[in-house]
Amino acid sequence: MLVVTTPDITPAQLDAIREHVEAAGLRTHVIRGEQRIVVGCIGDDAALVEDGLAAMPGVESVTPVLKPYKLAAREFSAGPTHVRLGSAARPVIVGGDALTVIAGPCSVEGEAMLLETAHAVRAAGAVALRGGAFKPRTSPYAFQGLGREALVMLAEARARTGLPVVTEVMDPRLVELVAEHADVLQIGARNMQNFALLSEVGRVQRPVLLKRGPSATIAELLMAAEYVMAQGNRDVILCERGIKGWDPATRNTFDVAAVPVLKAETHLPVLVDPSHAAGRADLVPALSCAALAAGADGLIIEVHPSPAEARSDGPQSLDLPAFDALMARLRPFAAAAGRTLPAAELAQVAEVAA
Amino acid sequence: MLVVTTPDITPAQLDAIREHVEAAGLRTHVIRGEQRIVVGCIGDDAALVEDGLAAMPGVESVTPVLKPYKLAAREFSAGPTHVRLGSAARPVIVGGDALTVIAGPCSVEGEAMLLETAHAVRAAGAVALRGGAFKPRTSPYAFQGLGREALVMLAEARARTGLPVVTEVMDPRLVELVAEHADVLQIGARNMQNFALLSEVGRVQRPVLLKRGPSATIAELLMAAEYVMAQGNRDVILCERGIKGWDPATRNTFDVAAVPVLKAETHLPVLVDPSHAAGRADLVPALSCAALAAGADGLIIEVHPSPAEARSDGPQSLDLPAFDALMARLRPFAAAAGRTLPAAELAQVAEVAA
Amino acid sequence: MLVVTTPDITPAQLDAIREHVEAAGLRTHVIRGEQRIVVGCIGDDAALVEDGLAAMPGVESVTPVLKPYKLAAREFSAGPTHVRLGSAARPVIVGGDALTVIAGPCSVEGEAMLLETAHAVRAAGAVALRGGAFKPRTSPYAFQGLGREALVMLAEARARTGLPVVTEVMDPRLVELVAEHADVLQIGARNMQNFALLSEVGRVQRPVLLKRGPSATIAELLMAAEYVMAQGNRDVILCERGIKGWDPATRNTFDVAAVPVLKAETHLPVLVDPSHAAGRADLVPALSCAALAAGADGLIIEVHPSPAEARSDGPQSLDLPAFDALMARLRPFAAAAGRTLPAAELAQVAEVAA
Amino acid sequence: MLVVTTPDITPAQLDAIREHVEAAGLRTHVIRGEQRIVVGCIGDDAALVEDGLAAMPGVESVTPVLKPYKLAAREFSAGPTHVRLGSAARPVIVGGDALTVIAGPCSVEGEAMLLETAHAVRAAGAVALRGGAFKPRTSPYAFQGLGREALVMLAEARARTGLPVVTEVMDPRLVELVAEHADVLQIGARNMQNFALLSEVGRVQRPVLLKRGPSATIAELLMAAEYVMAQGNRDVILCERGIKGWDPATRNTFDVAAVPVLKAETHLPVLVDPSHAAGRADLVPALSCAALAAGADGLIIEVHPSPAEARSDGPQSLDLPAFDALMARLRPFAAAAGRTLPAAELAQVAEVAA
Repeated sequence: MLVVTTPDITPAQLDAIREHVEAAGLRTHVIRGEQRIVVGCIGDDAALVEDGLAAMPGVESVTPVLKPYKLAAREFSAGPTHVRLGSAARPVIVGGDALTVIAGPCSVEGEAMLLETAHAVRAAGAVALRGGAFKPRTSPYAFQGLGREALVMLAEARARTGLPVVTEVMDPRLVELVAEHADVLQIGARNMQNFALLSEVGRVQRPVLLKRGPSATIAELLMAAEYVMAQGNRDVILCERGIKGWDPATRNTFDVAAVPVLKAETHLPVLVDPSHAAGRADLVPALSCAALAAGADGLIIEVHPSPAEARSDGPQSLDLPAFDALMARLRPFAAAAGRTLPAAELAQVAEVAA
Repeated sequence: MLVVTTPDITPAQLDAIREHVEAAGLRTHVIRGEQRIVVGCIGDDAALVEDGLAAMPGVESVTPVLKPYKLAAREFSAGPTHVRLGSAARPVIVGGDALTVIAGPCSVEGEAMLLETAHAVRAAGAVALRGGAFKPRTSPYAFQGLGREALVMLAEARARTGLPVVTEVMDPRLVELVAEHADVLQIGARNMQNFALLSEVGRVQRPVLLKRGPSATIAELLMAAEYVMAQGNRDVILCERGIKGWDPATRNTFDVAAVPVLKAETHLPVLVDPSHAAGRADLVPALSCAALAAGADGLIIEVHPSPAEARSDGPQSLDLPAFDALMARLRPFAAAAGRTLPAAELAQVAEVAA
Repeated sequence: MLVVTTPDITPAQLDAIREHVEAAGLRTHVIRGEQRIVVGCIGDDAALVEDGLAAMPGVESVTPVLKPYKLAAREFSAGPTHVRLGSAARPVIVGGDALTVIAGPCSVEGEAMLLETAHAVRAAGAVALRGGAFKPRTSPYAFQGLGREALVMLAEARARTGLPVVTEVMDPRLVELVAEHADVLQIGARNMQNFALLSEVGRVQRPVLLKRGPSATIAELLMAAEYVMAQGNRDVILCERGIKGWDPATRNTFDVAAVPVLKAETHLPVLVDPSHAAGRADLVPALSCAALAAGADGLIIEVHPSPAEARSDGPQSLDLPAFDALMARLRPFAAAAGRTLPAAELAQVAEVAA
Repeated sequence: MLVVTTPDITPAQLDAIREHVEAAGLRTHVIRGEQRIVVGCIGDDAALVEDGLAAMPGVESVTPVLKPYKLAAREFSAGPTHVRLGSAARPVIVGGDALTVIAGPCSVEGEAMLLETAHAVRAAGAVALRGGAFKPRTSPYAFQGLGREALVMLAEARARTGLPVVTEVMDPRLVELVAEHADVLQIGARNMQNFALLSEVGRVQRPVLLKRGPSATIAELLMAAEYVMAQGNRDVILCERGIKGWDPATRNTFDVAAVPVLKAETHLPVLVDPSHAAGRADLVPALSCAALAAGADGLIIEVHPSPAEARSDGPQSLDLPAFDALMARLRPFAAAAGRTLPAAELAQVAEVAA
């Protein structure tokens, strides 16, 4: 940590700063420049994080030198983390050579539409099924999801297709229930800093898909992952889904640079949600290709058998043929990125056998 | 709701759009322009909110005509809502002629510092006490608040000073507990769209101080209030506390225009938190004056007996003399705004009598 | 300047960094922490600004210690700068005790409307007249201003009312022409980093009203002022006019905190343009009051005799009675801020005498 | 254009609105909803753009139906525009099947470094050379470019390598001079709405590379292109280079979605500048791949023989081997996108022959 002092600092103020830092167990080192004095603080920055150093008289600014995340930092792990989803016998690995495409409806609206979607996305090469049971909606008057009933449908769809199931949990009181039915607990963007919820999913043994908040920096996303990991659950999958922007052309601003930045900062796998980033189905293919080209470990995509009938997110949902076409379009980009995508044909064979 | 269609829409697509809208119980009205056809939808927009109208073939854009909030809308109430805090005998009224200044430490760090702060801010003219028991912190390694113990201290401070107590609740499982000890339930900025929590505080009879999320539009803030109100709790106080910005000069960007916009849109009272908006104690006075001049119903300000010793938010906390000076500086602005501020002298007399 | 190095820096890389810095005439000072080495660079940062230090192997980040602006920095001047507008005999002083309200139409649309506005705003207490001759318009098909003809009308309005005239210059080839007719050269927000133009207005002896760019940080605004001042023209007036934001409720986001930040950083006077910040006439009064309360030295406001007939910016223009009402509403806030506003009555007397 | 009226509109106000619209030559069509009246305006919206319709009593909001750009709109052209750079005999085509990679130093710092870079980037497959002669710098004290001298060096580099030359022009007085030496006139991001400059480059017959401003919407970028095209110059190349964002992890936020949005909206070619988007050389390869995957027509990349010695933008410049590696990495992505990249080997042969 580096403390830049004000031009008019007094010797007594400087002494107080040094004593304050040293009382936290760090050593200090003073550099006297021509116009400013800088105090270098040697030792564990974290000891100083929560205090009022920046509020002391004579302090102009405090700059941390070390990253605030530890378990999520790339240095913490010898290599990229592989998160295993689904059955122990035939797990889906997120973060390995094979890209992970997760697809399904925004909301589970019924058993028939869910199964139709599940079979179709599996046939096209998706390896996991998404579907909302509890929906965060801006309006209290909008459809809030089918809740527990939808969890049962998701479990049924998994039984029929073999696809592990990803669904959002919004309430710490429901973590256990959702973990009973789902293979992956999704933390939605609006809950990225819901620390009660992060701690709760940190205490169960289910992979967590953690979406970046609309106004969260990349460092804040990693700190949210740290909350989960600090409770003991190391299976965190990060997801860029577009951040708050000011151009009305898209629903959010897809921060594709977050992918390589995260790859440099952390060992955790990184997915992209192009559907929420764009908010428009016509842009989903281009953003999906860009995500893979930037180094993402996979995608999570909204697919609906009939987007015009969708009870939520219709405009950004692909219909079944469009998803099929997208998967075909992705293959050469996956190859260009040195990654693999499950073949659509093989998936169909597996379906027949299932 | 107005539906603008694509230039190449077919008659069959236009029919399908009209049927879709009419199936929801609305009437349609078609305007044929030189280059585009527009379908006006007459009736309750809300019936169409959750569907896939925008995903239908031939639809270019959908523009709502009516505001999505109802209970929070200004039209819903004959006049400004007055929220009553504290004892029935001597309540504090938020939203009336008298401005409401709430002050206290970011975190409750101990009984002595809390009482010292409470007496000092009351003497200076504050009418309620803030203090964090459960703290949302970006890092899992930072001080998380004293929890239940702090709630007891807050209740004790109220007993000693008569000041109603405002504290944040972050977990729906703790709403009941917090409501037992506190007079106002604060929903923090990061939880503005934590819908499980909003619904839960909507079911208790305690005023709610709802902070605007860092990337929430004003309309989204009002929709969050609607969540609370739709559960039966109409005592919602809104709070602008700075939004996500890109200038590092301040911690957040204080959107002072939100104050008059909210005053035009809703009957609910509007406070401003200049401490989080600025992130720097030296800016708090100017932003406080600006907030009152813009029409705010009051302020919520972080005050600490020794900011350099604070366990959180030290750099943005005022010390006790600075708060006293601020209150003096605010008085002429309160008068200019046609509002009153409790006199510091009277507050001190009351203290002696307490 | 502080250089934080990478964890794996080699001794040779460290030596190269030190030699690089020392070759620019600075001294270096090395702090060896437990995980990182920091190189403190002692001397004039500016010598290093334009080089590739941050690109050297082993460098993780470079943090400047000193502010990049010199002439605009508060330390450069013994006190606040007073900029004098208009005639030497009865100048208007910007930055003194008296607040400066500049008002007038977005565009000069004709002689009659300009004179009507000029007389009315003077009667209400405005001390200078604004009016666009050359208009920056997003569309090439929109009204671009009356150009030279409008300059003549502005000079005529000054002759009739005694009000100094403020108008925008967009083209370095026209600086001389505009300076012949106008008392203040306005640099619009979109041209804040038009360095050819900044240099050109820096070479004439006319006060410059420099608007903050929609995506400019406060530091960048001060660097733009530095461009003008470095050419010899020290009469720069800064203007906050709203920055790029993402809430559609307002045209821009009024960054009221920029006012106290600028007051702390620079000796130059600071005005606020509430009309462009809001984009809506109904918000202009609240934002104007907030600006004065935050410490602004004055306002520049769009006023039109018939906003519905305006050829540009109608929705954000006040009509004449609304401007009159605003001036009355501002007076107690000016007094609360310890400033004065010219009395409307006196202004009217002066008008009769003129 | 659709006019939504206020709930309390009077019949006289409604009549006035209709008369206002009809006076501009449009027809009106009134839809009476249950709570609001909407006035549809049929005809050329543009006739109403510059007036005060939104300021009329009784108007709540005005929503345009048609896009404001005409020459730049996709409908204006039968197919994608191909912009030809350089010699008539062997032109480089931007916007065709072959991707266009433009590379070179941020600033021309001398003849030797320019030629070394030019030969190296040509050998790696670049088809045009970039290099700044006049540099827009935030600080007046930073290196401003070598000016005219650099133009001569660029022309010399073209003569030696056959690469067409791209350089920025910042001053309308210098457009003619720059056009004499350069093959493409670059308009920098900060000048995207410098309308005097846009008009001037619209009057010469040189292709224009128009960079998106840091706070410009995609629609505003297209309107800036419209300014150039309206003067007669139809050879406009658009360039996404990152927009203003709030995450300090990158210099700007690369809005990769702008690529497919622009491809849907306009016939003009679209390049990406990953160097300015990232601000960090290590991210340039990932962003370049993402750009091609999203459908960009090419890239403009900063390359320097020794980034640590660069006088500007060192941290984001690739060195020569890194650029060579990038071109190799791009090839499979180009193929996946169905596009071609000039082969590095062929380029080298051509160099020998030159």
